[in-house]
Amino acid sequence: MLEGNSANTLRLYAGSSYKEMALQVAQHLGIELGQVHLSKFRSGELYAQFPDSVRGVDVYLLQTFSPPINDHFMELLLMIDALKRSSAGRINVIIPYFGYGRQEKQGIPREPISAKVVADLLTKVGAHRVITVDLHAPAIQGFFDIPVDHLSALGILAHEVHKLDLSDAVVVSPDAGRAKTAEKFAAMLDLPMAIMHKGRPRHNEAVITHLIGDVKGKTPVVIEDIIDTGGTITQVVDNLVSMGANPAILCATHGIFSSPAEERLLHPAIQKLLVTDTLPLRAELRQMAIQVLPIAPLIATAIGRVHYNLALSTM
Amino acid sequence: MLEGNSANTLRLYAGSSYKEMALQVAQHLGIELGQVHLSKFRSGELYAQFPDSVRGVDVYLLQTFSPPINDHFMELLLMIDALKRSSAGRINVIIPYFGYGRQEKQGIPREPISAKVVADLLTKVGAHRVITVDLHAPAIQGFFDIPVDHLSALGILAHEVHKLDLSDAVVVSPDAGRAKTAEKFAAMLDLPMAIMHKGRPRHNEAVITHLIGDVKGKTPVVIEDIIDTGGTITQVVDNLVSMGANPAILCATHGIFSSPAEERLLHPAIQKLLVTDTLPLRAELRQMAIQVLPIAPLIATAIGRVHYNLALSTM
Amino acid sequence: MLEGNSANTLRLYAGSSYKEMALQVAQHLGIELGQVHLSKFRSGELYAQFPDSVRGVDVYLLQTFSPPINDHFMELLLMIDALKRSSAGRINVIIPYFGYGRQEKQGIPREPISAKVVADLLTKVGAHRVITVDLHAPAIQGFFDIPVDHLSALGILAHEVHKLDLSDAVVVSPDAGRAKTAEKFAAMLDLPMAIMHKGRPRHNEAVITHLIGDVKGKTPVVIEDIIDTGGTITQVVDNLVSMGANPAILCATHGIFSSPAEERLLHPAIQKLLVTDTLPLRAELRQMAIQVLPIAPLIATAIGRVHYNLALSTM
Amino acid sequence: MLEGNSANTLRLYAGSSYKEMALQVAQHLGIELGQVHLSKFRSGELYAQFPDSVRGVDVYLLQTFSPPINDHFMELLLMIDALKRSSAGRINVIIPYFGYGRQEKQGIPREPISAKVVADLLTKVGAHRVITVDLHAPAIQGFFDIPVDHLSALGILAHEVHKLDLSDAVVVSPDAGRAKTAEKFAAMLDLPMAIMHKGRPRHNEAVITHLIGDVKGKTPVVIEDIIDTGGTITQVVDNLVSMGANPAILCATHGIFSSPAEERLLHPAIQKLLVTDTLPLRAELRQMAIQVLPIAPLIATAIGRVHYNLALSTM
Amino acid sequence: MLEGNSANTLRLYAGSSYKEMALQVAQHLGIELGQVHLSKFRSGELYAQFPDSVRGVDVYLLQTFSPPINDHFMELLLMIDALKRSSAGRINVIIPYFGYGRQEKQGIPREPISAKVVADLLTKVGAHRVITVDLHAPAIQGFFDIPVDHLSALGILAHEVHKLDLSDAVVVSPDAGRAKTAEKFAAMLDLPMAIMHKGRPRHNEAVITHLIGDVKGKTPVVIEDIIDTGGTITQVVDNLVSMGANPAILCATHGIFSSPAEERLLHPAIQKLLVTDTLPLRAELRQMAIQVLPIAPLIATAIGRVHYNLALSTM
Amino acid sequence: MLEGNSANTLRLYAGSSYKEMALQVAQHLGIELGQVHLSKFRSGELYAQFPDSVRGVDVYLLQTFSPPINDHFMELLLMIDALKRSSAGRINVIIPYFGYGRQEKQGIPREPISAKVVADLLTKVGAHRVITVDLHAPAIQGFFDIPVDHLSALGILAHEVHKLDLSDAVVVSPDAGRAKTAEKFAAMLDLPMAIMHKGRPRHNEAVITHLIGDVKGKTPVVIEDIIDTGGTITQVVDNLVSMGANPAILCATHGIFSSPAEERLLHPAIQKLLVTDTLPLRAELRQMAIQVLPIAPLIATAIGRVHYNLALSTM
Repeated sequence: MLEGNSANTLRLYAGSSYKEMALQVAQHLGIELGQVHLSKFRSGELYAQFPDSVRGVDVYLLQTFSPPINDHFMELLLMIDALKRSSAGRINVIIPYFGYGRQEKQGIPREPISAKVVADLLTKVGAHRVITVDLHAPAIQGFFDIPVDHLSALGILAHEVHKLDLSDAVVVSPDAGRAKTAEKFAAMLDLPMAIMHKGRPRHNEAVITHLIGDVKGKTPVVIEDIIDTGGTITQVVDNLVSMGANPAILCATHGIFSSPAEERLLHPAIQKLLVTDTLPLRAELRQMAIQVLPIAPLIATAIGRVHYNLALSTM
Repeated sequence: MLEGNSANTLRLYAGSSYKEMALQVAQHLGIELGQVHLSKFRSGELYAQFPDSVRGVDVYLLQTFSPPINDHFMELLLMIDALKRSSAGRINVIIPYFGYGRQEKQGIPREPISAKVVADLLTKVGAHRVITVDLHAPAIQGFFDIPVDHLSALGILAHEVHKLDLSDAVVVSPDAGRAKTAEKFAAMLDLPMAIMHKGRPRHNEAVITHLIGDVKGKTPVVIEDIIDTGGTITQVVDNLVSMGANPAILCATHGIFSSPAEERLLHPAIQKLLVTDTLPLRAELRQMAIQVLPIAPLIATAIGRVHYNLALSTM
Repeated sequence: MLEGNSANTLRLYAGSSYKEMALQVAQHLGIELGQVHLSKFRSGELYAQFPDSVRGVDVYLLQTFSPPINDHFMELLLMIDALKRSSAGRINVIIPYFGYGRQEKQGIPREPISAKVVADLLTKVGAHRVITVDLHAPAIQGFFDIPVDHLSALGILAHEVHKLDLSDAVVVSPDAGRAKTAEKFAAMLDLPMAIMHKGRPRHNEAVITHLIGDVKGKTPVVIEDIIDTGGTITQVVDNLVSMGANPAILCATHGIFSSPAEERLLHPAIQKLLVTDTLPLRAELRQMAIQVLPIAPLIATAIGRVHYNLALSTM
Repeated sequence: MLEGNSANTLRLYAGSSYKEMALQVAQHLGIELGQVHLSKFRSGELYAQFPDSVRGVDVYLLQTFSPPINDHFMELLLMIDALKRSSAGRINVIIPYFGYGRQEKQGIPREPISAKVVADLLTKVGAHRVITVDLHAPAIQGFFDIPVDHLSALGILAHEVHKLDLSDAVVVSPDAGRAKTAEKFAAMLDLPMAIMHKGRPRHNEAVITHLIGDVKGKTPVVIEDIIDTGGTITQVVDNLVSMGANPAILCATHGIFSSPAEERLLHPAIQKLLVTDTLPLRAELRQMAIQVLPIAPLIATAIGRVHYNLALSTM
Repeated sequence: MLEGNSANTLRLYAGSSYKEMALQVAQHLGIELGQVHLSKFRSGELYAQFPDSVRGVDVYLLQTFSPPINDHFMELLLMIDALKRSSAGRINVIIPYFGYGRQEKQGIPREPISAKVVADLLTKVGAHRVITVDLHAPAIQGFFDIPVDHLSALGILAHEVHKLDLSDAVVVSPDAGRAKTAEKFAAMLDLPMAIMHKGRPRHNEAVITHLIGDVKGKTPVVIEDIIDTGGTITQVVDNLVSMGANPAILCATHGIFSSPAEERLLHPAIQKLLVTDTLPLRAELRQMAIQVLPIAPLIATAIGRVHYNLALSTM
Repeated sequence: MLEGNSANTLRLYAGSSYKEMALQVAQHLGIELGQVHLSKFRSGELYAQFPDSVRGVDVYLLQTFSPPINDHFMELLLMIDALKRSSAGRINVIIPYFGYGRQEKQGIPREPISAKVVADLLTKVGAHRVITVDLHAPAIQGFFDIPVDHLSALGILAHEVHKLDLSDAVVVSPDAGRAKTAEKFAAMLDLPMAIMHKGRPRHNEAVITHLIGDVKGKTPVVIEDIIDTGGTITQVVDNLVSMGANPAILCATHGIFSSPAEERLLHPAIQKLLVTDTLPLRAELRQMAIQVLPIAPLIATAIGRVHYNLALSTM
C-alpha cells in the first residue's frame, strides 16, 4: 500500500559542471539521471532544488571542479545541504577532478591548505563518502574522516600507451614531486624512467631544469596528474628535445587546459596527448589532436560496487 | 629584546571584493591596511598569502559578497584558513553584505538553507566573530555559534531621508515579509506606513499585488534591505504611481544592482535612490542619480569598539 | 529462531506533556503507544526509563512544550539520552508546539537566542530528526543540522474559516512581523488583508497602534501563530472594533492560553476562536467557546510518511 | 581614551536560584554583583538579559540546582548563551549543588545518564569551566572536557564536628556506595567507621539493612553528600538506635530537604544536623535545629584563585 | 548477480592481544574469525590491514587491554581507522578488560582522567559501540556518547562460589571503594559482609587498615574487580587471618597478575583464587591453582543479541 | 598581593622519551625544566602528574616518538589531558620526530592512515599547537586543524655536508618518493642529483632497483628523512658502489636505527653518517662513527619565537 523510496534504489544526480559525464555514467549503470533544478541568480548566488523525494535514498552526486571552479564547489555544497535536510540516506559525492588538490601543504608561510578546506567543507555540510580519481597527493585522503574511494586512471592511460607499441621509450617525470607516479607508470609499462628537476648551479643564478636519466634518441612518455595552462609541460618537452629525445607522448589524468593551453600544446615536440575526461574538454581544444579516454566506465563500476557493498580493491 | 606581535595591535586585511572600503575603514581607524597577496590561477583556483607574521595578532578581515560571489566567499575561507594555520589570534570577519541571506529557510521542499551553509563554513574554517550589516533575516544570527555583531544602516538611511524634509510622505514596505523593517523605519521617521502584498483573487488566476494603506498624493519612501535587479522594486513603484502616489524615494541598505538594474532604475516613478555602499557600485551605475551613503564610519567604529572591548549597543 | 526488533517497526512514545495526543496519533497509525516510565523526584529531578528493548528500533517521541515547559524539555532530553544509550535506531522527535521559538534572534543586546539553545541541545543529546508544526519563524529550521519536517496548520484553519462562509471578511495580521503569514492565509481564503502595526507619532509620545487596510463593516479574521495570555490579541480586536469592524474571528495554530487568557478571551469583539490542539487545552478554558481543531491526523500522516520514506511535500 | 572592559575585571552574576549566596560571595571578593534581568513568561519560558557590556570580561555565573531545578538549569543555559553571543571572555559557571548527579550511570537498562546530559549541555552552550562542590560521584568530572574545579566541603563539616568534642563517636556510612567518603571523613576526624548496607537473607524475602562495625553506646556521625526527603537517613538513624547507638549527628554537604524532610528530620534519634548552604534552606526548615555552615568563603576563595591563576590544590 | 557484503553478516576480528578468546567467541557464535594482518615494525610502529572487503559489514572487533597495554590500545585504534575508511558498517568494539579504568577521576590535582582519554579516542577514531565487562567504575559508561553494553561477571563468580557450599562465609570488600560491589555479591550469595578500610589513628602516624564486620572463624570471600600485582590483596588476607579468619577465597573479574603476583599469590591465607579470563593468563601463572572461569559464552551471547537487536537486559 | 601564574611565563615539560633533549632546550632558553611525575604501573598503564600549578600558563611539552613508541604517545596524551583539566593556557606540543608519519595514506586497501589517527588524537585530547621537524610528508600538516610549526633540519645537514668540501659529489634520492627532498637538498649544496627507483623489467620478475643520474666516480650524498633498520639504505649504497660510486655520505633528519641498524651501518660503502638528534641515540650505536648534529638550538629558537609571537618564517 505505502510505497516510499527503497534504500536499494541507486539515484544519480549531476551538478552543472558536467552533466554529459553523469549521463554516460547513468547509461553504464542502466538508470535514468535524477532531476535537480539548478540556477544562478543575477547576483551570482546559486540555487539547487530536487523535484523528487529523496527520503531514505542513497544518492550519488557527480560534480567535477571545472571552471568556474568556486561556483561548482558552492553548488555542490548547496546540493548536499538540500539532500541532507530532505532526509536523503547516504550522500555519496563523486568528484572526477578534485580541485585545489595542488595546494595540499603550506609550501611557504601563511598560505592556506586549500585542499583541507575543501575536504572539511564537504564533510561539514553532510557528505558521507567521496569517490574521486587521482588526487594530486594521496595524503589528501587523510584530510577526510569519511571514506574516500580513490580511483586511479593510470591503468587506463598505460593501456593506451601500450597499444602504441613504442620501441625505445622512456617514462619521464616532469618534476621531482611526480617521481613516485612516474615510477608506478614505468613499472606498468615495463619502461625505464627519467626525471626532470630544478636546480640552481650557483646562488643568484637563475633556476634551471636538469634531466636525470637517459632520453637521447628515445620517445619520452611524460606522465602528469594535471595539465593546466601547459606552461610546465612545454618547457619539459623543449628540454627533452634539446637533449636529443624524440617528440613526446604526454599523458595526464586531468586535462584542465586553461588558456593558453590551446596554443602551447600545438607544440612540435608533442606527438600525442592522452588525457581522461575527468573534466569536460574546453571548446577551443576540441579541434586539437588530443586523445580523450573515457573515465565514465571506471566511475560507473565504482558506484555500482559501492552501492552493492562490493570491494573496490579488485577493480 | 624580543619584540613580536602585540595582542593589542589592530590589523585589518581586505579580500579582493572591496579593497576601497577596507582602505576607508583603515583611514577611519588611523591604521595602515595589512598586506595580503591574493591571486587567481587560470584554472579558477584562488590563492591567498600573508607576507607579514600574524602570530598572536587579532585580525579583522573585510570581504563583501559582491559578484563573483562564490569566488569572494571561497577567497574569504582560504584567507581564514591561512590565518588560523599561521597562529593568528582572534579572526574577526567583517562582511558588509552577507550574501545568500535570502535563502534562509526551506520555502519549498528539497532546497538548501544556503545562509546556514555560509554560516557553518565560516565557523568550520576558523572565524571567531562576524561583523555584518542588516542581515536579510535577523534569525541568521542564530545560525552561528560565534558572536555576530549585527549593525544596522537604517539609522543612516533615515537620517538622510529626514534631511529631505518631505511633507506628506509614507513609508512603504514592498512586500509582506519586509513589514517589520518598514515599521521600524516609519517609527524612526514619524511617518505612516503602507504595505504591498501579493494575492490571488480566485484560484487559477494570476498573482496580483495589493496595497494596504494610503498613498494617494503622498510621497512613498520604499524601504528594502536589498535592491538586486530592480524587478520587484520597479513593479512596486509602478503600482504606487497607479494608485496616485508621487514618484518614490527608494531606500535600501544593500545595492547589488545586478543587470538590468541600470535600465530599470531609470524609472520616472523613482525620484531618488538611497543606498549605502556595503557593496561596490557597478561601473554602469556610477552615472546614475544614486545617492550612496558611506558605511565605512559605522564599520570602523564597530571594529574599534570590538577591539577595545567597548559595547556596540551604545553605537 | 532469534527474533529481535525489526527496523521496520514503528514505535511511538509520549513524554508526560501530552499523552492524549500521542494516543490519538497512535490510533490513527493503528499501533499501540510504547511504554515509558516517567517520574519526578521530590527534588524536581526528572527520570525516564523504557521497559521494553529499543535496540535497532526507529522511535518517534512526542512531546509538546506546554507548561511546565522546562520540565517537559528536560524530560525530552533525558528520554532521548536513554534511547541513544540503549541502541535505538533513528530517534525522531515530534514537537507539536516548539517552545522558545519567539526568542529566535537578539532583538536587544545581550539576550540569548533561546530557540537556538533548544535546537542545539536536542541535537547534542542525540535526536536525528524533528517534526514540528508552524515554527514562530521558519528560519529556525536552519538552527538545526538534522532534518526538520516543518508541517503547517494554516490549511486546517483556512478550511474551517472557509466553512463559515463569511461575506465581507478581511484577514488581519496583528502586527507587522506576522504580515507574511497573513498574506499566505489571505491567499488561501481569497480575502483581502489588513495589518496592525506599532508607531510613535512624535518622540516621547506613547507607542500607538495603527491599522493599514480597510476593516470598516467587515469581519476581521485575525491570524496568529500563538495565542498566549491574550493581551496582544484583545488590544487588536479592540482596535478593530473601534475602527468599525464586526466582532472578529481569531485563528491561531498554537493556543498556550496562559492566565489571564481565560478572562481576556471572553471579549465581546471576539465572535469565534479557532485553534489547533498542538497544546493541551487548560482546564479553565474547556468551558469557553473555543473551537479546537485536531492536529493528530496531520502528525500521524507525517510520521507514517517519514517512516515509509514517502515525501511530505505532497501532503 | 578608549576604555572598554578589562580582561582583569572579575564579574560575578547570579541566576535566580540563589542570589543571596552570590551576594555573600561578592562581599567576600569585595566586588559588586553584576546585574542581569531574569524573567519568566506566563508560558513558562525563561528569559535573561545583561544590561552591561560583557565584551572581553571573564564572568563567573552562580546558579545552584535548587527546585524548580529544570527552570534553574534552563535559565543557566540561556544566561551562558547570552554571554557567549555578547563576546564575554571566559564563562565560568559556579554550581554549588550539581543536580542530577545521582543519575551518573545506567543502573538499570534504558535509563538516561542524566549527569552526562547536564555536563554535555553546559559545554555545548558555551561554558568554559565549572566550579562545583562535592559531586555525588567524582567520575562526573570526567563527563566534562572543560576544567572542573571540584571543591570539597568535607573539611568544613569535619571542622565543625571536631568542635563538638565527641567522646566515643563513630563515623557511619549510610550505604555501601558512600563508604569511600565515610573513610575520608573518619580519617579527618580520627574516628572509627561503620557501614550500613542492604541485603536479602533469602530470595523472595524483603530487603533488610545491615550494619557492619560497632556503634553500641557510641555517637554515630552519619556522613552523606545529600539529604533529600530524609527517608533514607531516618531509616539509618532508626537502625542505629535499635543497635544501641546514641542519637546521631547527621552531616551532609547538600541539604535539599524536599518535603516531608521537615517532618522526618524532627526525629528523636537525630541530635544534630549539619549541612552547608550549597542550596538555600526552604522556609519550612528555618525553624528547625539545623546548623547551616556557610560555603560562600570556600567559593569566593576558589573564584579569586581561579581568576588570578593561583592553584586551588593548596586551598 | 551482484553479490556484495550483506548487512546481516556477523564478522568478528581479533586484535593481537587475545586471539584465543576471539576464537572461542567465534566458535560459540558458529562463525569463522575474520582475517586481519597485524604487524609491528622494528621502530615500534604498529600496522593493521584487512585482506577481505568490509564494505557495509557490521564488524565486531575484540581486543583486551593486556600488556603491552598501550600497544594493544593503539593497535585497536588503527584497526578501527582502517575499518572506518574502508566503509565498514557499524564498528562494535569488544573490550573484555577496559584498561586505565582505575584512573577515572582526578584523585589529586593535575593528573589525567585516563579512562576518559581512552573513551574519547575510541569514539574519535570511529567506534560505534563498546561491549565491555565490569568497568572499574560504572560512571565510565557516561564518558561515552555511544552505546556501551556493560556486562557483569559477578554472576559467573557467584555461581562458582555457590558451588563450594561454604558454611560460615563472609563476603569481604578489600577497601571502602569496593563496598558497593561487595554488597551486590553478598546479596547474590546470601552472605554477610565485611569491609576493610584505611585510616590513620593520629596525624603523622602510619596509615593502618581497619576491618569492619565480623570475620572470626569464618571463611572470607574477598571480591575485587581487578587483581594486579597482588600487593593489596595479600595485605587484605594477612589482615583477615590476623583477625581470626580462615584462609580466604579470592574472587575477581579481571586477573592482570602483574609480577610479582605469581609469588605473592602463593600465600597460605589464600585457599582459592577465582577469576574470569577477560585477560589471558600469564605463562608464569598457569601452574598455579587459579580457577579461571570462561567469559567467552557471556561475550558471544552479547554479540549475538546485539547483532540481532535483542535486549541484553534479559541475559 | 595575589601572585598567580603569569601568562608570559614560558614553561617547558619533558615526557619520558627524551629528557636530555628537553634539558638542552631549557638551557638554550635560559629556563628550568618544569617538573612532572611520570610512572608506569606493572600493568603497563602510564601515569602523569604535575606537582606545580599550571593555571593560565602556556606550556611547551616535549616528547619524541622513540621506542616504545606507543607508550610515549599515550604518555603524551595523558600529559595533555592532565594539563587541560588543570586549566593550563595554551598547550604546545613539541615532537622532534613525529612517528607513524610513514603511514600517511592508504597505499593498499583497508589499512589505516595512522598519521591521521595520531593527529586526530593529539587534537581531541587538547593540544593547541604542534611544533615538529621534517614530517615524512608535508601534507600531514593538513591532518591538523591547529597550527603546525613545521621546522626543517635540511639546512643543518647541508651546512655540515658543505664543510666536508667534497669534490665531485652528487645528491642521491634513495627512492622516487624522496626526489622532492633530494632536489631541495641538491639546490642547497649546488650539487647534481641522482635517483634510485624500483621497477620490474617483466611481469613475474623480481623488483629491481634502477638508478637514474650519474654517480660513477662521484661521492654520493644520500638524503633520507628517516634511517630505521638501515635495510633500504644499505641496498642503496650497495647499488651505488656497484655503479662505480665512491663510498657514500648518508644524511638523515631522524635516526631511529632500529636493530640491526648497528650492524648494517658498519658498511664499507658508507664513509660518513650524519643525523640530527631528534631521537635519542640507542646505546648500541654510540660507539659508531655517526655524527650527530644537535637539533636543540632549532627547537629552542622556535619555542622562543612562538612564545613571543615572532615569525618562524625568518628562522
